[in-house]
Amino acid sequence: MIIVMSRRATEPQVQAVVDRVREIGLRPEVSRGEDRSVVGVIGGNAYAYREAFSHLPAIQEIVQITKPFKLASREFQPHNTVVDVAGVPIGGEELVVMAGPCSVEGEEMLLETARFVASQGARILRGGAFKPRTSPYSFQGLGEAGLRMLATAREETGLRVVSEVIAPADVELLVGYVDMLQVGTRNMQNYALLQEVGRTGKPVLLKRGMSSTIEEWLLAAEYVLSQGNRDVVLCERGIRTFEQATRFTLDLNAVPLVRELSHLPVVVDPSQGTGRWSLVKPMSLAAVMAGANGLIVEVHPKPDEALSDGGQSLDFDTFRRLMQDLVRLTEATAGQPA
Amino acid sequence: MIIVMSRRATEPQVQAVVDRVREIGLRPEVSRGEDRSVVGVIGGNAYAYREAFSHLPAIQEIVQITKPFKLASREFQPHNTVVDVAGVPIGGEELVVMAGPCSVEGEEMLLETARFVASQGARILRGGAFKPRTSPYSFQGLGEAGLRMLATAREETGLRVVSEVIAPADVELLVGYVDMLQVGTRNMQNYALLQEVGRTGKPVLLKRGMSSTIEEWLLAAEYVLSQGNRDVVLCERGIRTFEQATRFTLDLNAVPLVRELSHLPVVVDPSQGTGRWSLVKPMSLAAVMAGANGLIVEVHPKPDEALSDGGQSLDFDTFRRLMQDLVRLTEATAGQPA
Amino acid sequence: MIIVMSRRATEPQVQAVVDRVREIGLRPEVSRGEDRSVVGVIGGNAYAYREAFSHLPAIQEIVQITKPFKLASREFQPHNTVVDVAGVPIGGEELVVMAGPCSVEGEEMLLETARFVASQGARILRGGAFKPRTSPYSFQGLGEAGLRMLATAREETGLRVVSEVIAPADVELLVGYVDMLQVGTRNMQNYALLQEVGRTGKPVLLKRGMSSTIEEWLLAAEYVLSQGNRDVVLCERGIRTFEQATRFTLDLNAVPLVRELSHLPVVVDPSQGTGRWSLVKPMSLAAVMAGANGLIVEVHPKPDEALSDGGQSLDFDTFRRLMQDLVRLTEATAGQPA
Amino acid sequence: MIIVMSRRATEPQVQAVVDRVREIGLRPEVSRGEDRSVVGVIGGNAYAYREAFSHLPAIQEIVQITKPFKLASREFQPHNTVVDVAGVPIGGEELVVMAGPCSVEGEEMLLETARFVASQGARILRGGAFKPRTSPYSFQGLGEAGLRMLATAREETGLRVVSEVIAPADVELLVGYVDMLQVGTRNMQNYALLQEVGRTGKPVLLKRGMSSTIEEWLLAAEYVLSQGNRDVVLCERGIRTFEQATRFTLDLNAVPLVRELSHLPVVVDPSQGTGRWSLVKPMSLAAVMAGANGLIVEVHPKPDEALSDGGQSLDFDTFRRLMQDLVRLTEATAGQPA
Repeated sequence: MIIVMSRRATEPQVQAVVDRVREIGLRPEVSRGEDRSVVGVIGGNAYAYREAFSHLPAIQEIVQITKPFKLASREFQPHNTVVDVAGVPIGGEELVVMAGPCSVEGEEMLLETARFVASQGARILRGGAFKPRTSPYSFQGLGEAGLRMLATAREETGLRVVSEVIAPADVELLVGYVDMLQVGTRNMQNYALLQEVGRTGKPVLLKRGMSSTIEEWLLAAEYVLSQGNRDVVLCERGIRTFEQATRFTLDLNAVPLVRELSHLPVVVDPSQGTGRWSLVKPMSLAAVMAGANGLIVEVHPKPDEALSDGGQSLDFDTFRRLMQDLVRLTEATAGQPA
Repeated sequence: MIIVMSRRATEPQVQAVVDRVREIGLRPEVSRGEDRSVVGVIGGNAYAYREAFSHLPAIQEIVQITKPFKLASREFQPHNTVVDVAGVPIGGEELVVMAGPCSVEGEEMLLETARFVASQGARILRGGAFKPRTSPYSFQGLGEAGLRMLATAREETGLRVVSEVIAPADVELLVGYVDMLQVGTRNMQNYALLQEVGRTGKPVLLKRGMSSTIEEWLLAAEYVLSQGNRDVVLCERGIRTFEQATRFTLDLNAVPLVRELSHLPVVVDPSQGTGRWSLVKPMSLAAVMAGANGLIVEVHPKPDEALSDGGQSLDFDTFRRLMQDLVRLTEATAGQPA
Repeated sequence: MIIVMSRRATEPQVQAVVDRVREIGLRPEVSRGEDRSVVGVIGGNAYAYREAFSHLPAIQEIVQITKPFKLASREFQPHNTVVDVAGVPIGGEELVVMAGPCSVEGEEMLLETARFVASQGARILRGGAFKPRTSPYSFQGLGEAGLRMLATAREETGLRVVSEVIAPADVELLVGYVDMLQVGTRNMQNYALLQEVGRTGKPVLLKRGMSSTIEEWLLAAEYVLSQGNRDVVLCERGIRTFEQATRFTLDLNAVPLVRELSHLPVVVDPSQGTGRWSLVKPMSLAAVMAGANGLIVEVHPKPDEALSDGGQSLDFDTFRRLMQDLVRLTEATAGQPA
Repeated sequence: MIIVMSRRATEPQVQAVVDRVREIGLRPEVSRGEDRSVVGVIGGNAYAYREAFSHLPAIQEIVQITKPFKLASREFQPHNTVVDVAGVPIGGEELVVMAGPCSVEGEEMLLETARFVASQGARILRGGAFKPRTSPYSFQGLGEAGLRMLATAREETGLRVVSEVIAPADVELLVGYVDMLQVGTRNMQNYALLQEVGRTGKPVLLKRGMSSTIEEWLLAAEYVLSQGNRDVVLCERGIRTFEQATRFTLDLNAVPLVRELSHLPVVVDPSQGTGRWSLVKPMSLAAVMAGANGLIVEVHPKPDEALSDGGQSLDFDTFRRLMQDLVRLTEATAGQPA
C-alpha cells in the first residue's frame, strides 16, 4: 500500500502517517519527491489497514499495490488448473461444450435436447431447475422434479450435468443430482452461497456478476477456493453497460486477461452474453479464439415455445452448424491462440 | 406488447405472427404503416409470452408497453405508503435519519455511537452484524453477538434497529433482534432471501443493486410485497458507472422518479453512495431536496480505527453539524420539494 | 509514478527498471517489500514517461500518483475562481440561474421567454443557434440568425447570453454575439475547439462529456486555461450509465468533489441531466444543496411545440415555481452547504 | 411511433392525443387494451414529432419503432458495401490489416515500421500526425510533417495510408496526403467534422464513440453518407464501462450485430480496445471470427520508446506471429463465420 500525501502536507502531517503505520505494526518507507511525499507501507496484507489512515489530514490518495486474491492467482499457482467434471476435463486441450435448455421444462423436451446435443459432440448438459427470475410472476423452474429429469438424461446419454443453485439450503439437494454446481450472475456476491458450494466436493461453474470487475470475480472464486474446493470454472457471461442493443456486453477481453491473472479455466456463455440467438455462433467462435476453454450454449427444440430465454436459444439445426464450425476451427488452430 | 415487423416482412409473415397471437389466447391488432406493419398484442401479461415470437421470421423488435411491477406501482396504489418501524413512520412528514457504524465492532463503541446519534436526533440505529465483504479475508462481522449488542443499544437509547441479513437461514435469527431487516445491494436479486424476508412481518430496507435498473429494483420489491409483506422502504445507495473518483455514483435522479412510479418510501445512503466522508453532508442535503424520506449514514467514534468503511464514516463532530444543517433545511422548506 | 514489480521479478529485472528510470533523467527509489519490490520514480511529470516501461518484463502495474491537471487544480490555486460574465459573477455568493429554450426557434418565442425568465430572476439567457444533433435529419439550429435574436433579447432584457459553439471556425462569429461560449458534452474532447475558445477572452461554459471522468473533464478545462483563458465554468449535465429510465444520470457527487479538486465554479444542468421536465425542480434544489454555483435550465413557452428537447423543458408556470423555491431555499440556507 | 397512455387516462385525454396527431398531419390508430390504450402514429418520420406530445397529460411512454438511420441500414441497401481504398477493397472476401505506429514520430521509425508490416501482409499503414490527447501537456503529433512522412512511406512500400483528422479546417490538408480519413472516437459526434469529411471523395474510417450506442454510431455514419460520401468503414474500438482492468471493453458483439443492421464494412481495433499489447493477438483472432472485415493494429519498432500508447503496441516479432496466425485462421475458415 502506498499513501500519497498532498502537495501542501506539512512535515508533522507526514510524520503522523508514519507514526500510524508503526502503531499498527507495519513498516513505513518515506519517499520525498519534488512535488510531494509518498509513504510506502510494507507488511502482509497492508491494504486491509487502509481505514486506519482514512481520516488523517493531508492525504491525497491511498493506492493498493497487491492484488487481493491469492489462491485464484497465477502468481500463487503458475500452471493451469484442469477441473475434472465426473471425467470430463475443463481447462486442458479439449474445448468443452455445455448445451441444453435455459430451463428444464419437461422430461420429453429435455431428453430430446440431451440426445441431440450429445450426438453433436456436447459433453455436458445444462438446464435450470431453480431459476432466478427478475419478476416474481415469471416461471421459477421445476425444482427437484427438474433435477430428476436431468439425472435421467445423464443416465441415458452419458452427458454430465450442470445446474444452477440459488440458495444455500438447496446445495445439498443439488449435489445429489448434478456433476457441477452453477452459481449465477445474480448470486456471484451471495457469499453465504459461495461458502456453501465451497464446502462441497463438486466442481463449481462461477458466472461473472453482470456488474463485477474481474478482480471481484476472482475474489468470489477465492471464497470457494478458501473453503477447500479447488475446482472452480469461471464463466464470462456479459456485463451491463450503456449499450442496450444487445442484452449484455459479452466481455471477451476478460478471457485472455483472466488467463494471465489466474490459473483457473474460463468458459464463455454467448447466449446470456448477447441475448440474441443470431449472435451466438459468431461470438462462440470468437470466444474460442480469445482463449476460452469451453462454451455454454442454450439450445431448445422449439425456441419459440421456451418458457424462458427463447430469444437467445439455438434450435437444433443452428446448433449442429455451430458444432461443425467449432470442430473445423479447433482442428485448424489446435484450439488456442496462445 | 407490440411486435414491430421488419420493412420487408411479407403478408404471410405478418399473418404468422397474428396466428401465433391467437394460438396463445391473446388478441392481435394489426396496424399497417407506410413503412412497416405493427402487431399489437392485447391481453393480461402479454409480455410474458414474448418468447413465443422470438424465432418467427421478419420481426424487427418486440416492445414491452406495460410495467412488469404491480404491487409496487403508483398505478396500483396512488397514495404514499408509510412504513411503521416499531413506531417510527418512514414515508410521512418526518425526515427519518438512521445512523451508526458500518459494522458492529464491540459493545462499548456501539453504545457510545448509539447514545450520540440519538442525542442528535437520529431515530434508527444501523450496524452490520453479518457483513457481505468482497474478500473472504476481510472482517465478516460479529454475527449473533453483534445482534445482541444492537438489542442492548436499543434498550438503552430507545432507537429502533436495522441490520443486514445475507442468508435466508439467518432471517429468523435477525427477526428476533431487529426492527427492520436490511437487504443489501449485493443481494437485491437474491430471490430466495427476498422471499424469506417477505414472509416475515418485519419492515424491509431494500437497497438498490449497484447495477440494477429502477425497474429491476421495483421488481425486487415486488418479490417481498407479493409474499404479503407490504412494509418495504427503498434505499438508493449508488450505482456502478465508469466514474471511479467516487466509490459509486449516487443516483439522486432515482429519488423523484421512484416517487412518481411507486408509492413506497425512498431513503438515501450517501455514505455508500459516495465512499468519501467529505461528500456525505452535501449529498445528504441534496438527497432531502430531491425528495428522500430519510437518510442512512455511517457514523463511527473513531473512523480511522473502523474495521470497515472508515473512509466513508462521519465522526461525531461532523455528524452533529450534518444534523444541525438538516434541521435548518427541513424547517425552512418543510422538508419536501414537491 | 510508481512501478510495481511482479512477485516473481528477479533482481536483474528490477535493476533494468532502475536503469531505465535513470536513462530518461528521473530519480529511482527502490522499496523492497515482503512480497514484491516497488520502484518510485521521482521528477517532474514522470507519468508522461510511462510508455518507456510498458514492455519491460516482470512489471505488474504502473501507478500514477500525481494528478495530471495543474492550472485547474485547487493545489495550484487554493481560492475559488469567480468568473465574470459581462458583470454577472459565477462562483461567488450568488446562485446564478441561466434559462431559456433548448434551441432558438424564432424571435418572438425567444423574446417572450427572455422577458419571462428575466422577470423571475434569471441572469443569463441560454439558447442554441448551432445544435449538435444525433441525427442529420433533425433540426440543426438557425445559425447566425439565431445569434442575432439572442443579441436582440439581451438588449431588451439586460440578460447576458450563453450559446453553444460546435466548430472552431464559428468561434469568432459567436464571440461577436454572446457573453459566454458553451462547449457541449459531445465536444468536450474536441481539442481543436477547446484551444480555439481558449484563445478568446470570453468566459467558457464547459459541459462534462457524457462519458468523461472528472479527471478528463478537468483536463479539458486545462486545454482552455493553458491557452491563457482563465474564465472556465464547469457544468455537470449527466453521464451515461446502464440506467435508461432517465436520459442520463445526473452525477451530483461530482459537484462537491470537483469543488474539492478545483477552484473553478460548477453549475448543473438538470434538464439535460434527467431528460424529464418533472424531475427538473427536485434536481435543481438538490444541485444547490450539493454546492452548485448555478443552474442552467431549459424553458419554453410551449414545450410541446419545441423543435428540440421539449420533454425536458419547463413551461413558464413550472419555472416560476422553481424560482420561488430556489429563493426560499437560498435565503434559508445562505445558499451553500459547506 | 407509439404513444402508450397511462392506465388512468380518461377518454378526453386519449382524444387530446389523437387530435394532436391529426394536427401535425399524421395518422392516429387507437388500440384499446384491457389495461390501457395505445395510440399508434403513422406517417414518415413520426418520431421527429415526439416533442409535440411531451407535455400532454396521462401519457406513460412514447416508443420509437423505426430506426432513425436510413442510408446506413441494411433495409435500405441489402448487399454489402465494399469500400475501395485506393485499390484495396474493404468489405469483400479479403481480411484487410492496417498497421503502424500510434503516432508518426519520425521518418526513420515510420519507414522501418512500414516496410516491416508490408512484408508481413498488411495492406494499409496507420499513423497519427494530429493526435487528440487527453492532456494538453502530452505530445500532440507532428502535424503536416508527419503527413509528408506517411506519403513517403506509401511511395516506398505501396501501402495505402490512413490517418486521423481532428478539425474540419484540416480536412483539405489531409486529403492531399492520405487514402482514408480517420475520425476518432472523441470526434464521433463532432458533426462539423463529419460533414466536412462527408464532402470529400475519400473513404472514411469512422471509429465508434467510446460511449456511443450502435444506433448513434450508425447515425454518425449517416452524417457522412448524407453528404454524398458512401465510403464509410466502421471501426469498433472499445467502449467505456465500469471495468478498468482493460483500458476499454472491446465490444465484439457489435461486429455481427452491425453487420445485421447495416451494409457497411466493420473493422476492429484491438490495440485501443484493450490497451494491453498482450491481449492484441487473441482479440484480433476473436474479431475475425466475430465477422470483422479487417483489423487496425498498433505496431512500433520499440514500443517502450513510443511517444504514445507504447503499452498497447506490438513489437515486430509479436506482429509477425499475429499475421501468421491470421493467415492460418483465414485459410482454415475462409475468413467468415457466417
